[in-house]
Amino acid sequence: MILIKAGGGKSINWNYIAQDIFELQKKEKVIIVHGAGSIRNEIADKLGYPTKVITSPSGIESVFTDDKAIEIFTMVYCGLMNKKIVETLQKNGVNAVGLSGIDGGLWRAKAKKDVIAVENGKTKLLKNNRTGRVEKINVDLIQLLLKNNYVPVISSPALSYENEIVNTDNDWASAIMAGDLKIETMIVLFEEAGLLKDFKDKKSIIKSVSKNELDIMMQFAHGRMKKKILGAKKAFELGLKKMYWGDGRIQHPIINVLHGNATIIS
Amino acid sequence: MILIKAGGGKSINWNYIAQDIFELQKKEKVIIVHGAGSIRNEIADKLGYPTKVITSPSGIESVFTDDKAIEIFTMVYCGLMNKKIVETLQKNGVNAVGLSGIDGGLWRAKAKKDVIAVENGKTKLLKNNRTGRVEKINVDLIQLLLKNNYVPVISSPALSYENEIVNTDNDWASAIMAGDLKIETMIVLFEEAGLLKDFKDKKSIIKSVSKNELDIMMQFAHGRMKKKILGAKKAFELGLKKMYWGDGRIQHPIINVLHGNATIIS
Repeated sequence: MILIKAGGGKSINWNYIAQDIFELQKKEKVIIVHGAGSIRNEIADKLGYPTKVITSPSGIESVFTDDKAIEIFTMVYCGLMNKKIVETLQKNGVNAVGLSGIDGGLWRAKAKKDVIAVENGKTKLLKNNRTGRVEKINVDLIQLLLKNNYVPVISSPALSYENEIVNTDNDWASAIMAGDLKIETMIVLFEEAGLLKDFKDKKSIIKSVSKNELDIMMQFAHGRMKKKILGAKKAFELGLKKMYWGDGRIQHPIINVLHGNATIIS
Repeated sequence: MILIKAGGGKSINWNYIAQDIFELQKKEKVIIVHGAGSIRNEIADKLGYPTKVITSPSGIESVFTDDKAIEIFTMVYCGLMNKKIVETLQKNGVNAVGLSGIDGGLWRAKAKKDVIAVENGKTKLLKNNRTGRVEKINVDLIQLLLKNNYVPVISSPALSYENEIVNTDNDWASAIMAGDLKIETMIVLFEEAGLLKDFKDKKSIIKSVSKNELDIMMQFAHGRMKKKILGAKKAFELGLKKMYWGDGRIQHPIINVLHGNATIIS
């Protein structure tokens, strides 16, 4: 079983990804997790409600999600993006079924309403954040679909224990999912060819990382990459054996990373 | 097995519907189909791309759906509305799973790109309409969920035979679903207490209609009600035994119609 996680960047090519998944699913069960950050920001802007990014005291960026923002989030992730991906997969012969973490309590999260953010050097307590951290998944629902030859395509948000829709970190949720489903291989596709030692030098890809060196890698991580490292740490803690970080924009993105053109963590 | 179809009007109360479904699902398998027309129009307006309603030569209204409109449609129906309904059902103890007609090819439609519309008395041919008519459903996927005690919550759009997302009529799709799943009872909830003989007189509810009188009922139908009659005709043609049309705004909406406070077609 392979978990493929693709980011929500504009230049991620789902047609290329779908072509590779069509081949991959002949040999392996495949689960897909996707983002939609870029198009979410566009729609949020158009609706006059721009995405608010906050920074934690430890320097991790996340989105502050109030009641209005969670509606836009749900609309774009579960509606526009999830169904476009399912359509693209179906066009490529993959029998995809799109689900969110909400459906059947697929991703169950502990709500975290208060969040501490640093703004202009000042620490602030922000309340009523519609966010949470995924703690367990509905294994039965995923297994049911996989056994019947469907390819689950999953996106945030998650469902809290109080049955509220909450925004959640995809990298962390993917790690929990890998753990609960005993997945050994994960492929993460984004808008870089791997983790860059110098993020201005596109050729400075770190080819191989030991799972024990992930903390050290934090120094090379910018923006969203920090969350990827935290997600990776969690996934390995829960039993993952191998993680690939590679380019989601190019032809044969999956074959490419499996051939070693990626940052490989093991 | 009961199919519950609720309209997309603003005053449809999903909390009330969910409370009744919690009781109903203890005795019966339940499938839900929902609309989202009202909120779709709101979001479409906010995005500067208002919904375009066209009228066929036979006087049936429908939405003209170009590439941009289908995106807004998918976003609101499968994202915002579908997941809000799933959340409300989960809060009420119903293990709901939200799906669109796209997922797993659940609703397979024949695309109909050209449409004839009457505008200011003139007949026009409109091209590139992203719409289609559902012809068959993925029975296995629905049965799989029902057997495992999930309540499927389904919305438009559908998937064409060419694997394109297409807008489709929910009433027609529900009829096909009732036929393919051998469903005998269907409850349709909307923003009236039933079919009104005089649509200005809220008390003029037609209590009982024979399935053979549906054509005659066309004279009492306004706007969307015409499509409901066409959907009902198709459903009875495919084996439906009883159809209730009742109020989706009030407490105990399902118990209410089952107690006879509705238009009952049989």
